[in-house]
Amino acid sequence: MKVRPLYDRVLLRRVEEEARTKGGIIIPDSAKERPSEGEVISVGSGAVLKNGETRPLSVKAGDRVLFGKYSGTEIKVNGEEFLIVREDDILAVFEK
Amino acid sequence: MKVRPLYDRVLLRRVEEEARTKGGIIIPDSAKERPSEGEVISVGSGAVLKNGETRPLSVKAGDRVLFGKYSGTEIKVNGEEFLIVREDDILAVFEK
Amino acid sequence: MKVRPLYDRVLLRRVEEEARTKGGIIIPDSAKERPSEGEVISVGSGAVLKNGETRPLSVKAGDRVLFGKYSGTEIKVNGEEFLIVREDDILAVFEK
Amino acid sequence: MKVRPLYDRVLLRRVEEEARTKGGIIIPDSAKERPSEGEVISVGSGAVLKNGETRPLSVKAGDRVLFGKYSGTEIKVNGEEFLIVREDDILAVFEK
Amino acid sequence: MKVRPLYDRVLLRRVEEEARTKGGIIIPDSAKERPSEGEVISVGSGAVLKNGETRPLSVKAGDRVLFGKYSGTEIKVNGEEFLIVREDDILAVFEK
Amino acid sequence: MKVRPLYDRVLLRRVEEEARTKGGIIIPDSAKERPSEGEVISVGSGAVLKNGETRPLSVKAGDRVLFGKYSGTEIKVNGEEFLIVREDDILAVFEK
Amino acid sequence: MKVRPLYDRVLLRRVEEEARTKGGIIIPDSAKERPSEGEVISVGSGAVLKNGETRPLSVKAGDRVLFGKYSGTEIKVNGEEFLIVREDDILAVFEK
Repeated sequence: MKVRPLYDRVLLRRVEEEARTKGGIIIPDSAKERPSEGEVISVGSGAVLKNGETRPLSVKAGDRVLFGKYSGTEIKVNGEEFLIVREDDILAVFEK
Repeated sequence: MKVRPLYDRVLLRRVEEEARTKGGIIIPDSAKERPSEGEVISVGSGAVLKNGETRPLSVKAGDRVLFGKYSGTEIKVNGEEFLIVREDDILAVFEK
Repeated sequence: MKVRPLYDRVLLRRVEEEARTKGGIIIPDSAKERPSEGEVISVGSGAVLKNGETRPLSVKAGDRVLFGKYSGTEIKVNGEEFLIVREDDILAVFEK
Repeated sequence: MKVRPLYDRVLLRRVEEEARTKGGIIIPDSAKERPSEGEVISVGSGAVLKNGETRPLSVKAGDRVLFGKYSGTEIKVNGEEFLIVREDDILAVFEK
Repeated sequence: MKVRPLYDRVLLRRVEEEARTKGGIIIPDSAKERPSEGEVISVGSGAVLKNGETRPLSVKAGDRVLFGKYSGTEIKVNGEEFLIVREDDILAVFEK
Repeated sequence: MKVRPLYDRVLLRRVEEEARTKGGIIIPDSAKERPSEGEVISVGSGAVLKNGETRPLSVKAGDRVLFGKYSGTEIKVNGEEFLIVREDDILAVFEK
Repeated sequence: MKVRPLYDRVLLRRVEEEARTKGGIIIPDSAKERPSEGEVISVGSGAVLKNGETRPLSVKAGDRVLFGKYSGTEIKVNGEEFLIVREDDILAVFEK
């Protein structure tokens, strides 16, 4: 079963940040309020413009992205956790 | 009696999620705040644009969709429960 | 005396829902927060677009419609109760 | 002295509703939260559109109208009370 | 020194309302929440439209106007009190 | 080092109001909530329109302006205090 | 690994302000609520307009900028702290 996000929505798999600092101390959850990293799984057909046309998104499957930690909605597909965000919740793309 | 949603509205039949985890423990309701699954029964004529024209929706009768659990309005037709949501409340479509 | 709603407004006569369940138990009012059913009596000339033109409404006198229970404003004309809602408060039309 | 409302504003003279029910019981003020009736005295030159043009209003001097009870601003001219509302606060026009 | 309001702003000199009722009783300030009267001293070059063009205002120096009592910002020029409001805060113009 | 404001922003040097009344009594700060006077030091390239074009500002370096006292952001450049406001926070220009 | 901000977003490296006043007294953090200085590291492809086109940003890599202290989102890349802001959070550019 595949998930096709609608319009400007993007399906992500969250890439967990290291929960330990260099010295090995565990940072409690409340201290980690910074954006999360994710991998783009699939993207919608594009953002709808006022005139009804569609603008393609600027991220694509396979991209590694940064997004606001509290953005989007979590979903579970075939037992695996994903996240659906709007493209506007994505701050930046990592390039290698 | 048939229900025709107006414009960008979509009539859904909710597909209940399993209320039990694999181990058979019941998850209390408050722990299930994730999107719900539904089946599209019928769709409106399209979203109205600023210029008065209509943009057709991107879901159709028969589609299985994910939507925000607290989206939309519940209605009862011929004794059966349905949900009317706006297309923008639909996050994604399942494809087989 | 006739009431002509302005622009995108719609004059409805509320169709009371059965206040009893099948088994004859009365549902208290607070438990009935679902959309109401109404009959369209008359409609405005259309929704005004940004460019000043008017888009005709998609409901017409005689239609049976569903609307949000708390939408609109109640008025009394010749001793009879009516409701004026905006077309956007109407969720769906019943078709026979 | 005459009052010329600006743009989409409308000058109304309030038509008092009967404060008594059929049986002659006085309804306390708090129970009367329904729209008020008024007579249009004069109207502005029209609503300003985004492009700077003006759209004429759809009510005219002499019309009997229904408006939200708490809409508008009360003014006193030559000792008489009037109300200035925006056209969008007017719900409907009575036609004879 | 002259004050030139910007764009859709209007410089007014407030015309004080009679603070006494006919019978000579002073109305306390809190009871006077109705629009104020003012004289237009100067007006801005016009309201800016979305496309960058300017729409001239519909009031001019010398006009007597009604405006919401709590609209605008009070300024003092050469020891005299004035008010700067947006044209949209002006409800109506008095015509003789 | 020079500061170039972006788009519709304006760099001002605040012109202090006399903190004393005629009789020589000092007005406490909380009593002075009226607009402030400033001198325009530099202006941005213009306000961005919806279509991406730019509309030049209507104030220029050297202008004496009135602005809402709590508008803008204070900055310190080379030890001197300035204020950056949006053009829309400027109410009027003084002309000699 | 490089970070490419999306659309109208800008990647900044914060330039710390002197935490000491001339006399050598440390200003507590709560007293420093003024804009921060940063160096632009990279910029997005441009702000998206209503019609789907893109307007290039007016800052570029290497620019020294002023931005609202509480704007944007902090990120850590390769152990170094950066900030992602929208172009609209940038108040001004320093020019030498």
